[in-house]
Amino acid sequence: MKKIALFLLTMMICGITSAQFAGGMFGQRQEPLPEGYKPASTNTFLAQYPAVNAQTRQAIFKVVAPHADNVALDLAGKKYSMTKDEKGVWTCTSDPQVVGFHYYAILIDSVPVMDRNTNSYFGSNWQSSGIEIPEGPEGDYYRFNKDIPHGHVRSLYYWSEINGMERHCNVYVPAEYESNPDKKYPVMYLLHGWGEDENGWSNQGHMANIMDGLIHAGKAVPMIVVMDCGDIKTNSDVRKASTNDVTQIYIKDLMPFIERTFRTKNDRQNRAMAGLSRGGFQTTMTVFANLDKFAWMGTFSGFFSRPGDNITEAFNGVFKDPAAFDKQMNLLFISTGTEERTPKEAVDALKAHGIKNIVYHESQGTAHEWLTWRRALNEFAPLLFK
Amino acid sequence: MKKIALFLLTMMICGITSAQFAGGMFGQRQEPLPEGYKPASTNTFLAQYPAVNAQTRQAIFKVVAPHADNVALDLAGKKYSMTKDEKGVWTCTSDPQVVGFHYYAILIDSVPVMDRNTNSYFGSNWQSSGIEIPEGPEGDYYRFNKDIPHGHVRSLYYWSEINGMERHCNVYVPAEYESNPDKKYPVMYLLHGWGEDENGWSNQGHMANIMDGLIHAGKAVPMIVVMDCGDIKTNSDVRKASTNDVTQIYIKDLMPFIERTFRTKNDRQNRAMAGLSRGGFQTTMTVFANLDKFAWMGTFSGFFSRPGDNITEAFNGVFKDPAAFDKQMNLLFISTGTEERTPKEAVDALKAHGIKNIVYHESQGTAHEWLTWRRALNEFAPLLFK
Repeated sequence: MKKIALFLLTMMICGITSAQFAGGMFGQRQEPLPEGYKPASTNTFLAQYPAVNAQTRQAIFKVVAPHADNVALDLAGKKYSMTKDEKGVWTCTSDPQVVGFHYYAILIDSVPVMDRNTNSYFGSNWQSSGIEIPEGPEGDYYRFNKDIPHGHVRSLYYWSEINGMERHCNVYVPAEYESNPDKKYPVMYLLHGWGEDENGWSNQGHMANIMDGLIHAGKAVPMIVVMDCGDIKTNSDVRKASTNDVTQIYIKDLMPFIERTFRTKNDRQNRAMAGLSRGGFQTTMTVFANLDKFAWMGTFSGFFSRPGDNITEAFNGVFKDPAAFDKQMNLLFISTGTEERTPKEAVDALKAHGIKNIVYHESQGTAHEWLTWRRALNEFAPLLFK
Repeated sequence: MKKIALFLLTMMICGITSAQFAGGMFGQRQEPLPEGYKPASTNTFLAQYPAVNAQTRQAIFKVVAPHADNVALDLAGKKYSMTKDEKGVWTCTSDPQVVGFHYYAILIDSVPVMDRNTNSYFGSNWQSSGIEIPEGPEGDYYRFNKDIPHGHVRSLYYWSEINGMERHCNVYVPAEYESNPDKKYPVMYLLHGWGEDENGWSNQGHMANIMDGLIHAGKAVPMIVVMDCGDIKTNSDVRKASTNDVTQIYIKDLMPFIERTFRTKNDRQNRAMAGLSRGGFQTTMTVFANLDKFAWMGTFSGFFSRPGDNITEAFNGVFKDPAAFDKQMNLLFISTGTEERTPKEAVDALKAHGIKNIVYHESQGTAHEWLTWRRALNEFAPLLFK
């Protein structure tokens, strides 16, 4: 009976060394990349491709598909035919891209699928591939900084009576929170856009790095940031929710949960809401209907003008009396990328109408994408709660 | 200038009602499912398929691929040819499956891809589709219970000098943690297996629900659970790590970070380590080399016997003196599913050799999969720190 030693099943199956299993130091595969190219930061850790050239801002994509008739890349609104080599590996090189994060898909015989070389990013209501075209040092504000304290993003579930099921949300808690057990904090509710989810601000937006940096530099006051889901989900057992208006959930289920779970300052001067795209619209719907609860708001790429109606009637007349609006709302932050439809005309109209507490921000050269929103958060958060 | 109203860009593009955008109450699509079938709990919230029949434990899969020549399902070691209808939708119905969580892939003209109808689960080193075949009430211990307090899973990054870059880990903190600001807690380090990552225990394992239930019922003592990554990742800028042995990172970088970040009890009686599959092997490598730091250990589907060597020599002779081993190690928990290669022979040999502090657990009817490991955690955690 003593003639037995103890080994890992996988070692026996694979017959590889213990060092590999104990460590898994695979790194990137060693086939050399073309000059100037590096694996994208959005790749899974074993994947060499997609590879990005930071100077030309081009990317090379590879897909192993020996039996497919046709493989293509769908990136930034353009479809690229890929070319097959003798091993069945399809390749293409993209045009130069705008810096920042872009979703993309691979088309295998016209079926859009995820490129499994990248991490997954929830967008357009499914798990998508993404690629980061790197900025230079001007992007350091959303990168991990090992030399400063870090907040924690807490993943939690709360019960929503309105939704009829538990809901997942993420809550950023600043680094100093636990060393100040008697201190209370202001709260920013930060919403995602259509087709994305409550993980977007962390995964695509790097919000924790942005907030860590702003708070450490004294630019933003330490605050809690709540990122809820902007959709009302049902599941196979719970098909019904009692409303189709998610703003009801924010006010009646989420906010009470947050305020009994964290040490929060519970008055309108200490609550902000902001969101991107559809989340900007949800912000206006929530805040303008609950002016007793919020005194700060931001809409990133989500607040647009349409000629035709009257400014004094918009949003049930909230802008009718400019002085009254400014007294209620400390900040109406409106931002956009220069390469998307801008809300500048509406902002100018509101200013001309006499609204003073507006801040307008443009992200140069970016479209309806995450770099626009990282920049917006970096401009918005320092303005809050002071 | 007043002839302007403010609207969301997406409303203008899509021309749909504000209620939909404010709420997104899409729910499941309304095409009726076959009798007895429901959308799988692992689906994205809009996807009706895959649909599961809880009685027959079969699942129906659908893939829209009008231009593919061949579409197949790869599930639990079997490939199913799918059949195309006149709209280009491919369908198949699986054999009855074992309950619990299973990875699967769709093959589009032989290319394995993710089924984008499901959430993504990191397995085999890429983002994979998964399907949960539901248990009955016997599975309630890993489901969300709205009537008990919930711990938080904190997502955080720490700097690893050894890895040469930041590393992501998740830390479960029990519900009572913040209402006891002077209390210190024991720590369980809980490792994932090959090809998975530090999110596996939360996403596939539902560990927070398991721990919440055990702690609330008084079965387990309140503890912190640390889930680190079991691989040494590099990125495009940091190609080198100073070791290929991840256990060095656990001891020298992770543990000090945890103990200065959380209120932990910092002695061997209050530290446990456990892991599944490769993580079980990493557990033995870490704990047996650091007996001054751990007094409790578990290996789930990761501890196997091979006839040939001598038990007294295994792991540098840690088992040589059974009484000495029992004095050092309060618990050596070894578990397996009955449908995988079991370590029973090794366990019996260790017992015959005189080791007393062994607990052996078998998960009936399950293989090298997550239900085996949910059950293992549910058995293991109550044995710790008492």
